Amino acid sequence: MFHLRKTLQSIGRTTRALSTIATLQAVKRPFTAKAGAILLAAGGVILYAQKNKVYAFDYMIDTSKWMSKPITALSILEQTKDSSMRSKMELLIMRIQGEVCHKLEDLDERGKFHVDKWSRKEGGGGITCVLTDGDVFEKAGVNVSVVHGTLSQASATQMKSRGLDIKSSQPKFFACGVSSVIHPKNPNVPTLHFNYRYFEVSDTDGKKHWWFGGGTDLTPYILDEEDCSHFHRSLEKACRQHDPEYYSRYKKWCDDYFFIKHRGESRGVGGIFFDDLNKPSADSAYAFVESCADTVIPCYSPIVEKHKFDSYSYEDRQWQLLRRGRYVEFNLVYDRGTKFGLQTPGSRIESILMSLPTFAKWEYCHAPLSNSKEAKLMDVLKNPKEWI
Amino acid sequence: MFHLRKTLQSIGRTTRALSTIATLQAVKRPFTAKAGAILLAAGGVILYAQKNKVYAFDYMIDTSKWMSKPITALSILEQTKDSSMRSKMELLIMRIQGEVCHKLEDLDERGKFHVDKWSRKEGGGGITCVLTDGDVFEKAGVNVSVVHGTLSQASATQMKSRGLDIKSSQPKFFACGVSSVIHPKNPNVPTLHFNYRYFEVSDTDGKKHWWFGGGTDLTPYILDEEDCSHFHRSLEKACRQHDPEYYSRYKKWCDDYFFIKHRGESRGVGGIFFDDLNKPSADSAYAFVESCADTVIPCYSPIVEKHKFDSYSYEDRQWQLLRRGRYVEFNLVYDRGTKFGLQTPGSRIESILMSLPTFAKWEYCHAPLSNSKEAKLMDVLKNPKEWI
Repeated sequence: MFHLRKTLQSIGRTTRALSTIATLQAVKRPFTAKAGAILLAAGGVILYAQKNKVYAFDYMIDTSKWMSKPITALSILEQTKDSSMRSKMELLIMRIQGEVCHKLEDLDERGKFHVDKWSRKEGGGGITCVLTDGDVFEKAGVNVSVVHGTLSQASATQMKSRGLDIKSSQPKFFACGVSSVIHPKNPNVPTLHFNYRYFEVSDTDGKKHWWFGGGTDLTPYILDEEDCSHFHRSLEKACRQHDPEYYSRYKKWCDDYFFIKHRGESRGVGGIFFDDLNKPSADSAYAFVESCADTVIPCYSPIVEKHKFDSYSYEDRQWQLLRRGRYVEFNLVYDRGTKFGLQTPGSRIESILMSLPTFAKWEYCHAPLSNSKEAKLMDVLKNPKEWI
Repeated sequence: MFHLRKTLQSIGRTTRALSTIATLQAVKRPFTAKAGAILLAAGGVILYAQKNKVYAFDYMIDTSKWMSKPITALSILEQTKDSSMRSKMELLIMRIQGEVCHKLEDLDERGKFHVDKWSRKEGGGGITCVLTDGDVFEKAGVNVSVVHGTLSQASATQMKSRGLDIKSSQPKFFACGVSSVIHPKNPNVPTLHFNYRYFEVSDTDGKKHWWFGGGTDLTPYILDEEDCSHFHRSLEKACRQHDPEYYSRYKKWCDDYFFIKHRGESRGVGGIFFDDLNKPSADSAYAFVESCADTVIPCYSPIVEKHKFDSYSYEDRQWQLLRRGRYVEFNLVYDRGTKFGLQTPGSRIESILMSLPTFAKWEYCHAPLSNSKEAKLMDVLKNPKEWI
């Protein structure tokens, strides 16, 4: 499956190169007519390509870096990308998934993503990409999902408790998003998490509620304050383009959201987090989400490059494992996305729990020595600070 | 603290031997008068013993195997043990904690329990005993707690949803119990969990709701059917003394309770589990709980003895770590006791989460080979069976 995809991508790229000139004027022409013209130019790959035409040959949407066919047929995405936010968002998450996976493979040099495309009986599906046991990354998962169906009772109750005025007892929903957790091997490289999603809930009276949510946050094991500043500055820049108040508001929301109440400490050094964003308009909210998603790589890859060959001790590794235990605690006890997934019938559990690290550790009453680097991190986790 | 305790115990035993005859007739005499007479007999230890009299010198309650002073003063327990279920239960859990800890130390041969006695600002306290990195046990925790205060909103809601008719919005509660999770090193030795508890909730109209709950269950990594049968037979025997229907009812309840819904599999091979037990009478419910708690050691120690020196492979260890990941999932996502602890203000988080294993592992889409020993275990976890 994975190799077939790669082959198709490579054929796609070749035929695209052959036909670039012919299609420069072809924008908005029907997909099949376009594909036909191009296949003619591609000669001997016609028969092979016809079978896979929707996936391999598209000249208006750049699919060259995608990890798989999309969930919705490409022809439909093509036709509706300007009129439907669902399609627009699916195209964004496909692109972000591809770009992030390729960047991580470049950074790792050895590890390769395993790609699983799955469908959900109740409606929709997803693409889960996981890189395991690379040189740089212990476990990196990048998941997209495009799902729809009837909201579970538990999820509906949770949404109502957040102030959403849903009247129906069994509302229909649509959700799509990209979510990712990247756990590196080296304790000097922080864990990264990001998630950008679009939600629609249809009420009995026909009213459609919609909103965006998401965020990007960093979880260091050994604190490098320069990294934290770089990370937050990058996010601030993305926010500033859309609203001067977004960064400070969503930075605080992130600190609040990723707080492990029962430990009295944050999961990491934060970043941004927002939910229920449905203003000023769908298009401008989308534009903000796109800017944030496009900031993931510039936020994170310089930090990976900087530390991936740093030396570390056995004690550093044990500390990283203990902090990964806290990561597990947060995700299983508090994370809204994980809870939504566990409560949604037919959800693909491996795609939800790919966020959990390969290894985690718990030690009874562990306490860092005072003035140690572990204590320095804990101080920041117990008292979230401003990084810019 | 621990050594002082041991010294005191030994002095206690000596003075007890000296004064056995003198106190044979002393049952029900006031504690201080008794203690005075005995101290006189003990000669040179008088001054030392006076400071510690409540703990070290008691001739009606055998404290010799306890891990610490109790939460409630021994003199009060002594006076109320026949009239108060709270005291009766505290004495039971102190005894069980001591017996289990000593048995585990015997089985381990090297590991020793670390004892923490703690108090809770909101009311009550506990004694947490943890043995880490022994020869046989990777992590074994045995905790008693005796707490009281105002029920959190979340816990009250949960109890009401179970059918408890609580009218007050902020009811007072009292809870005491012993709970334990024992994670051995060798994957051939199963993990054991047990928990026995007594609960009281006082309503606005003065009505007191009370109930017992508890259970003992086994989580093997490499299935030994003989062990499972021995384990279940021991529990069945304990149940049979009290009600012919208890075993089958509580065996099923255990299978249902320890089911990891999002995985479609059980945490282990079960045992017994019950909650909200408030009949036929408080005394007979207590007697049942006492029989169950007394069955912990005969249930488990023969299994440890049988397998603690078994050889195992690297693959066996990795499989054990993966299953420990499932243990973490169950405890953090579903376990009622853990949830109650995380929701209860001022609870001692390290005592609640001592149930988590030292190490756990998650592997994306791990699937055992067909006909392997891992597959054999999974078959039983997906289709709970009768063991006797």
